[in-house]
Amino acid sequence: MDSTTLLYEALAQGYRVWAVSFDYNQRHRIELESAATIAQRLGLPHKILKIDLGQIGGSVLTDMTQDVPDQADNRQFSTVVPLRNALFCTLAASYGETVGVDEIFYGPVKEDFLAYRDCRRPFFDSLAQALSLGSSNEGRAVRIHTPFVDLYKREVLERGFALGVPYKLTHTCYRGQRPPCGECDACRERLAAFAQLGRTDPLMV
Amino acid sequence: MDSTTLLYEALAQGYRVWAVSFDYNQRHRIELESAATIAQRLGLPHKILKIDLGQIGGSVLTDMTQDVPDQADNRQFSTVVPLRNALFCTLAASYGETVGVDEIFYGPVKEDFLAYRDCRRPFFDSLAQALSLGSSNEGRAVRIHTPFVDLYKREVLERGFALGVPYKLTHTCYRGQRPPCGECDACRERLAAFAQLGRTDPLMV
Repeated sequence: MDSTTLLYEALAQGYRVWAVSFDYNQRHRIELESAATIAQRLGLPHKILKIDLGQIGGSVLTDMTQDVPDQADNRQFSTVVPLRNALFCTLAASYGETVGVDEIFYGPVKEDFLAYRDCRRPFFDSLAQALSLGSSNEGRAVRIHTPFVDLYKREVLERGFALGVPYKLTHTCYRGQRPPCGECDACRERLAAFAQLGRTDPLMV
Repeated sequence: MDSTTLLYEALAQGYRVWAVSFDYNQRHRIELESAATIAQRLGLPHKILKIDLGQIGGSVLTDMTQDVPDQADNRQFSTVVPLRNALFCTLAASYGETVGVDEIFYGPVKEDFLAYRDCRRPFFDSLAQALSLGSSNEGRAVRIHTPFVDLYKREVLERGFALGVPYKLTHTCYRGQRPPCGECDACRERLAAFAQLGRTDPLMV
């Protein structure tokens, strides 16, 4: 939901986009199919970059060998892979250098900003500076755009409706189910955003 | 050669070390076996982190599908993967967070410093700042040590002899041959360093 809205936002801002998805060994791999479908529909190049975050450990989203505690009282913590956004942005910047792209659009929203330190502007500004300094081309200035960082999810959704985002084609469920389970954290947040706008999620129809 | 010397340097400085190697789909995968042997001999934990740099493209070290031009007049460029050191350091910092390690030892030498922007201190300083800002633990200060960044390879080797590094167990050849080919860039640089010290490379005996 956020990523597709971000894509439409970048296009609306006039950018020519290379769409990038991350195959990080996530349980909800079905989101990669959705991304491919959406990019194809828009006629955009789409690259899936693989990085197995399961090997890092620490997250129930990827670590199939990890016991998920029955009484997990802090579910947000258990979906954290340390520095995940640093890895994704760096991979995108590396790939971008090979295709001549210096600007990255990344989609954290206000709820992420409040929960995760690597979803905040000071981090993205600092990382962009590091990536600029490390790029092979001395003149390269890497920029990381996060147009939704100050917007709550419902505001992102509102923006998406204005942009004509085909939410029917998106995927959000952490359990990777289609139709979505409606019960996992990701589904609940999505459904809450639709409800707050008085809209029906087309995936739940 | 550089990495093993770096390991001994970190131990000499009194650090307790988690050894990390990167399986980036390199042609010379044999270096991973050498690393495992050395870590085991020292009784150190050893983690191999996988990140396929072949998918990024641009480097003959990883991209098996890429035609290597016959008349490659700029061989250094062809072994570049953009922001490779940023990816490796970020992966190490991510893994480090899960095991409680904040300090990274990384082994660029003066020759790298002169050739690559992501082998220079301004880059490492900037990246360490970004990784500190992005880490889940607000108090975490990631540091990236590069004790050899101002040393030429022959000086690193000299330091290694003083530290008792078992160069017999190391691997350097880009072609992944054992005994080493002696002809690739990596072999030539290694042999030149030994020659400059009036030493014989134990791998060539």
